[in-house]
Amino acid sequence: MIATADTLKRRARRGRDGRGSDAPVRAVWPGLAGGCYRPLSDAEERAVHEGAMHLLADLGLAQAIPSMIERVTAAGGSLTGDARLLFPRSLVEDTIADARRDVVLHGQRPGLELDLSGARVHMSSGGASPGLVDLETGRYREPGARDLYDAARLVDALDNIHHFSRSLVVRDAPDPLALDVNTTYACLAGTAKHVSVSISDPAHVRVIADLCHGIAGSERSFRERPFLTVMVCHVVPPLRFAEEACATLEEAVEAGFPVQIISAGQAGATSPATIAGSLVQAVAETLAGLVFARLVDPHARAIFAPKPLVADLRTGAMCGGGGEQAVLMAAAAQMGRFYDLPTSSIAGITDAKVLDAQHGAEKTLAVSLAAHAGSNLITQACGMQASLLGASMEAYVADNDMLGAILRTVRGVEVTDETLGLDAIAEVCRGEGHYLAHPQTFARMKTDYEYPSVGDRRSPRDWEADGALDMRERARRRAREILAGPHPRHLGDEADRAIRARHALLLSRTDIGRTE
Amino acid sequence: MIATADTLKRRARRGRDGRGSDAPVRAVWPGLAGGCYRPLSDAEERAVHEGAMHLLADLGLAQAIPSMIERVTAAGGSLTGDARLLFPRSLVEDTIADARRDVVLHGQRPGLELDLSGARVHMSSGGASPGLVDLETGRYREPGARDLYDAARLVDALDNIHHFSRSLVVRDAPDPLALDVNTTYACLAGTAKHVSVSISDPAHVRVIADLCHGIAGSERSFRERPFLTVMVCHVVPPLRFAEEACATLEEAVEAGFPVQIISAGQAGATSPATIAGSLVQAVAETLAGLVFARLVDPHARAIFAPKPLVADLRTGAMCGGGGEQAVLMAAAAQMGRFYDLPTSSIAGITDAKVLDAQHGAEKTLAVSLAAHAGSNLITQACGMQASLLGASMEAYVADNDMLGAILRTVRGVEVTDETLGLDAIAEVCRGEGHYLAHPQTFARMKTDYEYPSVGDRRSPRDWEADGALDMRERARRRAREILAGPHPRHLGDEADRAIRARHALLLSRTDIGRTE
Repeated sequence: MIATADTLKRRARRGRDGRGSDAPVRAVWPGLAGGCYRPLSDAEERAVHEGAMHLLADLGLAQAIPSMIERVTAAGGSLTGDARLLFPRSLVEDTIADARRDVVLHGQRPGLELDLSGARVHMSSGGASPGLVDLETGRYREPGARDLYDAARLVDALDNIHHFSRSLVVRDAPDPLALDVNTTYACLAGTAKHVSVSISDPAHVRVIADLCHGIAGSERSFRERPFLTVMVCHVVPPLRFAEEACATLEEAVEAGFPVQIISAGQAGATSPATIAGSLVQAVAETLAGLVFARLVDPHARAIFAPKPLVADLRTGAMCGGGGEQAVLMAAAAQMGRFYDLPTSSIAGITDAKVLDAQHGAEKTLAVSLAAHAGSNLITQACGMQASLLGASMEAYVADNDMLGAILRTVRGVEVTDETLGLDAIAEVCRGEGHYLAHPQTFARMKTDYEYPSVGDRRSPRDWEADGALDMRERARRRAREILAGPHPRHLGDEADRAIRARHALLLSRTDIGRTE
Repeated sequence: MIATADTLKRRARRGRDGRGSDAPVRAVWPGLAGGCYRPLSDAEERAVHEGAMHLLADLGLAQAIPSMIERVTAAGGSLTGDARLLFPRSLVEDTIADARRDVVLHGQRPGLELDLSGARVHMSSGGASPGLVDLETGRYREPGARDLYDAARLVDALDNIHHFSRSLVVRDAPDPLALDVNTTYACLAGTAKHVSVSISDPAHVRVIADLCHGIAGSERSFRERPFLTVMVCHVVPPLRFAEEACATLEEAVEAGFPVQIISAGQAGATSPATIAGSLVQAVAETLAGLVFARLVDPHARAIFAPKPLVADLRTGAMCGGGGEQAVLMAAAAQMGRFYDLPTSSIAGITDAKVLDAQHGAEKTLAVSLAAHAGSNLITQACGMQASLLGASMEAYVADNDMLGAILRTVRGVEVTDETLGLDAIAEVCRGEGHYLAHPQTFARMKTDYEYPSVGDRRSPRDWEADGALDMRERARRRAREILAGPHPRHLGDEADRAIRARHALLLSRTDIGRTE
């Protein structure tokens, strides 16, 4: 009657509707609906929206690129004497009204789809981290392509991480094109889950598109089921476009990539020191990018991604582990729900440098609030440390447990006649006096309870007798096990060889576990 | 312009209205309003309430004590043939309608009041832990009166812990009366913040009341501003009264103590395995206790404290670190808000045995959801480990940081014309292009940002150069510093000597830092 942890872990996740006939049963799954946490009142949501409309229509954004000025003015916008591009309210509100809400992020194989509609919540890595905590030495060092591939492999193996946003900067790439190609390759070779990358130059978009088309078999099949999103920080806040990034955004939309439209101001530095001010600026900036993306292609798969950050005002340094960051991001996610747009959030930044209690506490606070606010794709939800300056292999493993618990809370209470079970309560009270042997208990063990993988639930005595390992050490061991295990095979040999024929890759065939 | 961490820490908290004239400024304070997280829909709240009414009216509770049967039947209840006491709907609903909502928990000195009305959130220790992680050896051992006093001293010194619920079982007490007396004394000697204890025998209530009257100066002054709550687990779930505890509840209410009325079933063992079933049973059981308390004294300061727990159904052992526990407790807190009753929750149980990432993650998830659900008093929010089998001195210190961040999220976004600051945004965008030097930034640094005490925000380089200490080690050092510092003096020498004249105390005068 008692299932072991291993039995439970071997069970695959069940279908999104929770009724996947033969599918094995799990207590959590991708796409559970959030939205029960609303840090903004209705009036506050409306005030933030009105503020954003005002900023876009009357202040506008500087540094628009020519193609953007052309498209936006043709749609009713205007350029001021000091070269700020104004977005009239009707243009922005029409954009919101008509934007695609049916954005599905595909994996390299069926069964990994992430439906970003409604308040469905998905968990993701994230980063662009310049540093890595070495799994063996515990010291920070520069990461290479091999490390990014390993991070992708870990995410591929961890059930509660649904999406791989490239977490590490490939520091061994000789030039920007090699960086983009090797980043994309390392991610797609490491995991079949949907991947998001950024692209450092608009001219590279075609190259990355070709690479993806090769893996997908054809351009058409990639456009139908794109497994790679391009993330674009299209602004340099406050309210200033990033010119190259806007060109990249344009190219990416035209190439059929889903795009994440990201504004990442830093409260007190590049956005206001008030939470509300940072929020309204981020919403305005992100909407400006969304307008542009939809003028490039009204069918653009565009993800609303206001990702406002927080500085430590004593030093001016970015710091993402505080409550200010958590509530600011949750409010931004709520604005995504207010607009009913596919929404991505940054949550899970920690200022901790090591997998310790600070890491666990700071990450959980931000991720859980973003999830309960109904963000569709929470990046940086695992692996990142040191205020985004580092990633940690053991952290992916530990955070996967944290995400399972958070997802269980997102699933919620589920009040029905059956779950209330008043008759069962009466039966037990008038009978045995406990629920241990009640049939309901055995049934619910499988469907309602999420079990940690490296989290320890033993008694102090048993735990001490087994070496008194903390989460960091347990997670390191598990990370080593996963990385020592078989390499993924979802990237076919033919596609792999075709990529190698065109590009000098940092990862050899041996590195990805192919011997032939 | 840049304040140091020490400067910020020296500032005391500002008044509850955030406008305490001369009061130094802090970003968080006791009594911030939660309630933005509602895991239950309106219909689900109503269904849980209806279910609880049905259980109370038609199934009732077993093992009622004679005085309870007398009081409840006189008020319209009845006893069934199989000796279950039934509570008619009207009696329960009248109790809810007429219960005191103006419960204020006092400290031993003015300025420490906790107003449990509305959705005001306060953080508390908690426990009754049989074990303690030794601060020096890191091993689990039995705690004594000295350890409980130290835990109280730590809480006294930590700003974001507002209430001391006795966390350790005094294992060196020779008998139950000595346990109760020494527990109460160690708590009240260690902190001036409001204290909650349980009392092991109804006959001891008078003894503890006398002790409190001595400290307060008179019975009348204690009854006016009671600084000690009696916690009572009045049921042995499912739906069975704990006879001795009910007698204690009766005595405590008569003695003028505020009482916490606690139901703590364990899902899958003593309450249903479904989250909804555990919830409805806990609500019914707690309401039964509330009815009794108000029949004893309609002016009883009674706190609605459904504290449903969760078992690991694979082993049957209590385990509180999972998402099931967090969402179940948050839903119970929401029922407290549904009834608008002073409500206490258990949140912050972790299954971790050490101050590690599991500790941080599990505690934060549960405490933040209970806080956002609007629980008035969150016990076990700090210090506890090992599924409530242990407490840890360093954990109080680390958790104080966590609670600060959570409270900052509870404070929320605060959207006003001033905080949106659209004019300030325009000014910066048309001027300097950043907010670093904006007057608003300096002002908000003090009022809007909560800074961690032992949380590390340095760069990886600086952190490594300083010894690469994790949160556990930093918190241990801080705990040692606090405990090596001056002892609190709020318990007057006269009151202390009067207690010593009547009771054999485990803590000597020297133990509490008095040399004379």
